[in-house]
Amino acid sequence: MNFFIILFLFFSLFSITFSHETFNSHLLPRPLIIEFPQTIETQFGKSIDELQLECSSWRFAVESNNLSPWKTIPHECADYVKDYLMGRAYRFDLERVSKEAIKYAKSVELGEDAKDVWVFDIDETLLSNLPYYADHGFGLEVFDGVEFDKWVDKAMASPIESSLKLYEEVLKLGFKVFLLTGRSEHQRGVTVANLINSGFQDWDKLILRATEDHGKLAATYKSEKRNEMVEEGYRILGNSGDQWSDLLGSSVSIRSFKLPNPMYYIP
Amino acid sequence: MNFFIILFLFFSLFSITFSHETFNSHLLPRPLIIEFPQTIETQFGKSIDELQLECSSWRFAVESNNLSPWKTIPHECADYVKDYLMGRAYRFDLERVSKEAIKYAKSVELGEDAKDVWVFDIDETLLSNLPYYADHGFGLEVFDGVEFDKWVDKAMASPIESSLKLYEEVLKLGFKVFLLTGRSEHQRGVTVANLINSGFQDWDKLILRATEDHGKLAATYKSEKRNEMVEEGYRILGNSGDQWSDLLGSSVSIRSFKLPNPMYYIP
Repeated sequence: MNFFIILFLFFSLFSITFSHETFNSHLLPRPLIIEFPQTIETQFGKSIDELQLECSSWRFAVESNNLSPWKTIPHECADYVKDYLMGRAYRFDLERVSKEAIKYAKSVELGEDAKDVWVFDIDETLLSNLPYYADHGFGLEVFDGVEFDKWVDKAMASPIESSLKLYEEVLKLGFKVFLLTGRSEHQRGVTVANLINSGFQDWDKLILRATEDHGKLAATYKSEKRNEMVEEGYRILGNSGDQWSDLLGSSVSIRSFKLPNPMYYIP
Repeated sequence: MNFFIILFLFFSLFSITFSHETFNSHLLPRPLIIEFPQTIETQFGKSIDELQLECSSWRFAVESNNLSPWKTIPHECADYVKDYLMGRAYRFDLERVSKEAIKYAKSVELGEDAKDVWVFDIDETLLSNLPYYADHGFGLEVFDGVEFDKWVDKAMASPIESSLKLYEEVLKLGFKVFLLTGRSEHQRGVTVANLINSGFQDWDKLILRATEDHGKLAATYKSEKRNEMVEEGYRILGNSGDQWSDLLGSSVSIRSFKLPNPMYYIP
């Protein structure tokens, strides 16, 4: 009988140790967990933490306009960019920009002459081409104008819901809405169709690249068009775009809102 | 004896189970590990993942100039901002901006008239006040000008090494270096001392706020000073600053470099 008692005691001790172990690892992760990502090397010979650091830094450089013109995203950031776009972070960022813009739009007093304008870019600002870019490596492939135009012709880009909210809000507040896009004049039909089927309506102007605008840098073309607005007596109070070339140059808006876009760069 | 054999068998079985368990958790983290951050609530009633998402989004909004003037960092992002600044990410971002700027500086051809200028802001661009802000919650406390001036008077701000590298490079390339700071003229002595003891020398102009500049927005004051440079025939090819008010306005530089600063905002 003595042996059974010893056996029972051993059993109990082990059970307690074991259950304690399980309980603790739920409550407090062991160091090995936290160190896990730093020890696994990726195909680029860098740890996941290292890549996160580098790609996050790269994205910061993109969004704060510190980079020279770039043609594709860094190869090693392909997964990072994809995860950002397909996960919650991209939509979260888009929503924040929209909220900030709405807050500002509500705070300004508009003139009675209906000359206060909000300028919107279209691609990656009102309409999302994410389905197209998902098929083309989210910016990993060099931009192919011919392929992209085929996509545009389908008029299947999806609305960026947070931008639609801002769009409707500024219209309601009494702003004139001018759409200023790098798309060509010959794409007016499909662009109008895509905007309408995405819920955008009642804009005051839709400005596309005319023949003479082709070959101009986006920053130049858009500045010229804003200059014309100012010459016509409009006051540009707000401007939303995913490219710095939508926002900088001449006749710059009182407030500009930079939507995130880590997929491509338009100079 | 039989009992000892049974005891031994039990012991062995437990050991195997136990060692197997330990081995596996080193190799493959269990789901509970991955889920850990999503299940622990912080003092703000949000998971760590949620806070990471929100604060990272807030930081990008700061760096892409989407926010209205703000006085303190969001309370719930206090740890995030501290970790960013004290960890590798801040230095990593600073180094990237410096590298991009050096690449650009080397790519431009300078005139023979010695009129090509690189403008540098000072605080959080050449000199780091991180020791001061570490004592004041990294932006969590409302800015206290009197306290900060006491710190400035000590001339103990540390050099931002990556900016020193850029600084020396543009001097070597033949740029004129103009320092344009929001500090007051009466702080010239300590500012010069701090710059020199940090390794910065041979600048061509050090412009501080004169009496008539007090009360002006930084963006206005700095634009006016850049206008004067242009009127004097200088070409502003590069501009480095941690605030958008260092970079935007009139007589904007050909290329501007936005250094990260999630601690404070100067309009």
